[in-house]
Amino acid sequence: MTPVSADFSKVPFVSVDDMLRLVNHIGIERFLTDLGTTIEADFRRWGDFDKVSRLATHTPRGVIELMPASDGQLYGFKYVNGHPANTLEGRQTVAAFGLLADMRTGYPILLSEMTILTALRTAATSAVAARALAAPGARGMAIIGNGAQSEFQALAFKALLGVDRLRLYDIDPAATRKCMRNLAGLGFDVTPCRSVREAVDGAGIITTATADKRRATILSDELVGPGVHLNAVGGDCPGKTELDRDILLRSHILVEYAPQTRIEGEIQQLPPNAPVTELWEVLSGARLGRSDPREITVFDSVGFAMEDFSALRYVHEQAIEAGLFVDLDLVASPREPRDLYGLLRRDPAAESLCA
Amino acid sequence: MTPVSADFSKVPFVSVDDMLRLVNHIGIERFLTDLGTTIEADFRRWGDFDKVSRLATHTPRGVIELMPASDGQLYGFKYVNGHPANTLEGRQTVAAFGLLADMRTGYPILLSEMTILTALRTAATSAVAARALAAPGARGMAIIGNGAQSEFQALAFKALLGVDRLRLYDIDPAATRKCMRNLAGLGFDVTPCRSVREAVDGAGIITTATADKRRATILSDELVGPGVHLNAVGGDCPGKTELDRDILLRSHILVEYAPQTRIEGEIQQLPPNAPVTELWEVLSGARLGRSDPREITVFDSVGFAMEDFSALRYVHEQAIEAGLFVDLDLVASPREPRDLYGLLRRDPAAESLCA
Repeated sequence: MTPVSADFSKVPFVSVDDMLRLVNHIGIERFLTDLGTTIEADFRRWGDFDKVSRLATHTPRGVIELMPASDGQLYGFKYVNGHPANTLEGRQTVAAFGLLADMRTGYPILLSEMTILTALRTAATSAVAARALAAPGARGMAIIGNGAQSEFQALAFKALLGVDRLRLYDIDPAATRKCMRNLAGLGFDVTPCRSVREAVDGAGIITTATADKRRATILSDELVGPGVHLNAVGGDCPGKTELDRDILLRSHILVEYAPQTRIEGEIQQLPPNAPVTELWEVLSGARLGRSDPREITVFDSVGFAMEDFSALRYVHEQAIEAGLFVDLDLVASPREPRDLYGLLRRDPAAESLCA
Repeated sequence: MTPVSADFSKVPFVSVDDMLRLVNHIGIERFLTDLGTTIEADFRRWGDFDKVSRLATHTPRGVIELMPASDGQLYGFKYVNGHPANTLEGRQTVAAFGLLADMRTGYPILLSEMTILTALRTAATSAVAARALAAPGARGMAIIGNGAQSEFQALAFKALLGVDRLRLYDIDPAATRKCMRNLAGLGFDVTPCRSVREAVDGAGIITTATADKRRATILSDELVGPGVHLNAVGGDCPGKTELDRDILLRSHILVEYAPQTRIEGEIQQLPPNAPVTELWEVLSGARLGRSDPREITVFDSVGFAMEDFSALRYVHEQAIEAGLFVDLDLVASPREPRDLYGLLRRDPAAESLCA
């Protein structure tokens, strides 16, 4: 960890603009690859982490969540909302920011935007899971739901697995056109499709990333053939699912953290003791990923605080190195720690008032 | 709530420097009075709030906590650490910052330093409780522990109750001298004392605000006479207490939120069903504060998330009005919400790379 400043009051801040510059500076595919490596390394040392389900505050219009994680050395948390109706007013459904702190002192060492970073870490995690689960050599992927997540998923699968043939479908053709426009010239062979059935035809990997906050069957059972890997990204809160329950019953299911996914993921459709494998078990070699070429595998992704921790850790290193941050005056730093009040007397405004 | 900017990406940020200027701009006594009014108003509508105990992550050297609270309209949380050994390296034991968000959209509307603000809200809450509990007309207060909290407590009791006679004691005479220096010229009659016994002599109000993270008996039973109000600020985590248990057994005890205080406060020394009154009950008139001139009253203060919520709410109004903030580029704001990826293409650095 590079010491940024001897002034304890300063906390490096990575703004939205800094994050965009950082991703473009590193290159998005390398960023996703390196972020995937960081996430995988952290999942392999699963036992080091203090794991808790996120702390959610619900309202009729949405949810606000705090997602903390720590490994004994560093502490990270993400603030994230989920408000589907926001898009009607030009806001994001999901906006996020996060913080990394040194556990030795409790002092923050990074504040960062995480709306863009969350999309990147979600995609990188999906690709890490797929690398362990998808049939070797799969180059074609269907993406059902071509919203804010779709390009990030496509690029992560290209960077980490070599996926370069995409079949896109969205109930709104404008979303598919937007996704195609953004991916143009990036080395994909892209086919827009008029139905889910058409999109999944021949695809070795199927990514579902829709945004409806309800139980929906985006993908019905008969559309999923042997050997397919399903990357189910959209179902991520109680009452929101995308997959036909029958698919789950004949699949090998991977989750991030079972206690959280049983509440929030596709497997909320299954009994609470339904067998699942945790991603860290496969990444650390403790359990097998794909065991058979005809097996159907599902990564039931809901997003776990540890992934945000890994992402903040990666961005901290990279942003400091690239100088893409500003220092925020966030922590009061009296010369004598017990003299917090003395700070008020040193404020120039106070001096002029007292004069 | 004043709309600050139509640009959804911007979040007003109140830095340490802004907070110091704001307090001096308003005047610390008026700030404490108005903050007390805001806290009292929020406690009176106790039923509106979603209340949870704080989410704590412990390490051998300290603790990091997230403290959320919401009233259905606004959501606030504070990040705060507690690392007693920090002062050996010139850092604060407690550093904090907080955020306020609009629950309708989940978007942040304020990020603020809270190291100074926490000291202010703790003192204001103490004074609000004392106004309901202390014997009417009490003008003398003993302060045991003259560290970072002491001046704020003194000024809050002066502003809200008219307390202007102080008797100070600390095991470290340098702390007492520092406190006296800071309070000089502010209208107090201050007596430094060489023992707790000397300090509490004749004081109608006794504030204990020591920092030791262990069970200590700062105040023994025989030193507390009839009619005294005890403002116990320092005991605020499991294993850390300041008062002799026998004092608690003969006192009327007020707490902020009983489930949290039973774990963290002085009353962790009592059985889990020991009778206590919650502050909101007294402030709303549902239960009596002081019932007898000879009654001993204790405010067992540990700090509750709602007080931080009130403080953020007050600072949001005041900082916006005074223009003491800067806008942070914290929330990614694509022109079309589903086109988050498109932001990467609009970054000037990207354009030069693609050219």
